Amino acid sequence: MTVEQLTAEERDSWLSGLKGWALTREGKAIQRTFEFGDFSEAFSFMTRVAMIAEARDHHPEWFNVYNRVEITLTTHDADGLSRRDVKMARKIDALLA
Amino acid sequence: MTVEQLTAEERDSWLSGLKGWALTREGKAIQRTFEFGDFSEAFSFMTRVAMIAEARDHHPEWFNVYNRVEITLTTHDADGLSRRDVKMARKIDALLA
Repeated sequence: MTVEQLTAEERDSWLSGLKGWALTREGKAIQRTFEFGDFSEAFSFMTRVAMIAEARDHHPEWFNVYNRVEITLTTHDADGLSRRDVKMARKIDALLA
Repeated sequence: MTVEQLTAEERDSWLSGLKGWALTREGKAIQRTFEFGDFSEAFSFMTRVAMIAEARDHHPEWFNVYNRVEITLTTHDADGLSRRDVKMARKIDALLA
């Protein structure tokens, strides 16, 4: 199944509702950096994100060092951003709400 | 407590016993990439590495996308490689033995 890439208008509209996420890779991905008290907290967060990712079959590209987690979301099948990324970003943000 | 940086001789000697790890960052870190069957396997491995890291209070810099995990080890307190990195690399490798 092909996943449709967001139009520039859709992208800007959805993004305006996502606090902390910024466009990267020439608009083909969104990225947010999260900071925690220590590694244990950061990895606990990552574990919850991993479960969301697995359940949705949509996986992040992410980097961690100690208390910092940098998450990049993109949809390879769409060669850019799709609604799956926006929904995933919202799910991730909801973990911290 | 200061952690001592490995001498070039020590480094080369310890590294020769570490399969798959390569020097990076001008010899100040070692890096290895691990590949698994899927995200679930990759993240299970990461969880075990996280426990080792927390127990030793020595944390990796790492990147994951789907089934690939890229681990970089360095000792900030030593501004380079120390025995802690070599021991950690062995512990990580032992998970896959």
